[in-house]
Amino acid sequence: MKSLLLIAHGSRRSGSNEEIRQLTSKLRELAGAEYQQVDCAFLELAEPSIETAIDRLVAAGETQILCVPYFLARGAHVASDIPEALEAAKAKHPSVTFTTSEYLGEADQLPGILMQIAGRAATQAKPSHT
Amino acid sequence: MKSLLLIAHGSRRSGSNEEIRQLTSKLRELAGAEYQQVDCAFLELAEPSIETAIDRLVAAGETQILCVPYFLARGAHVASDIPEALEAAKAKHPSVTFTTSEYLGEADQLPGILMQIAGRAATQAKPSHT
Repeated sequence: MKSLLLIAHGSRRSGSNEEIRQLTSKLRELAGAEYQQVDCAFLELAEPSIETAIDRLVAAGETQILCVPYFLARGAHVASDIPEALEAAKAKHPSVTFTTSEYLGEADQLPGILMQIAGRAATQAKPSHT
Repeated sequence: MKSLLLIAHGSRRSGSNEEIRQLTSKLRELAGAEYQQVDCAFLELAEPSIETAIDRLVAAGETQILCVPYFLARGAHVASDIPEALEAAKAKHPSVTFTTSEYLGEADQLPGILMQIAGRAATQAKPSHT
């Protein structure tokens, strides 16, 4: 059983965390039958933590967990904190296979997306004060 | 003359800021003749600031500046800090047209991109410790 875990930073603002949960719902829809479960976890400031989220997935019978870091740059979180949390999870659940994808910021689709975002704004000519 | 300004948070880590500069170079290539100049600015912790970057674009003759916030969530930076910086820029350069796009995190392409990132990782089955 394969699951997808979106790992976000977490925020003091509940609205920001809610954005992550809504994004996770969209991923769940897109995943169809490919992933048994699609969930999110927060590195800090919000729940569930990476440990808690993984514990839940394993308790639900998942044997393969694919982690997708929702981060824009290779800071300490991507370089150290997430790998450390996943090493701890592997030690705790040795029969589960953990895989980590690229983080969002290194996806080669991003420059194209940004140009599309720019193009949409240029078309709508939305003033900066709205 | 139209220019694109990617607005990032900025980091204490020079590597993270360098990622933004490299991304800006890619945007510049993609922009072709559509934008006269493509540049980046940082909200804090790195140079150039939004004010400095805009001053430079205006000094170079730009009359339309399209700002693209490179942020994942609608936190205080997106909701207040960037609009305030752009209001100040508009007051300083009243003949320049400023437009602000969606921030990256609200782009409707993001869920699809994340599923593609997940799909690539699942295919490569890269272990989490690499």
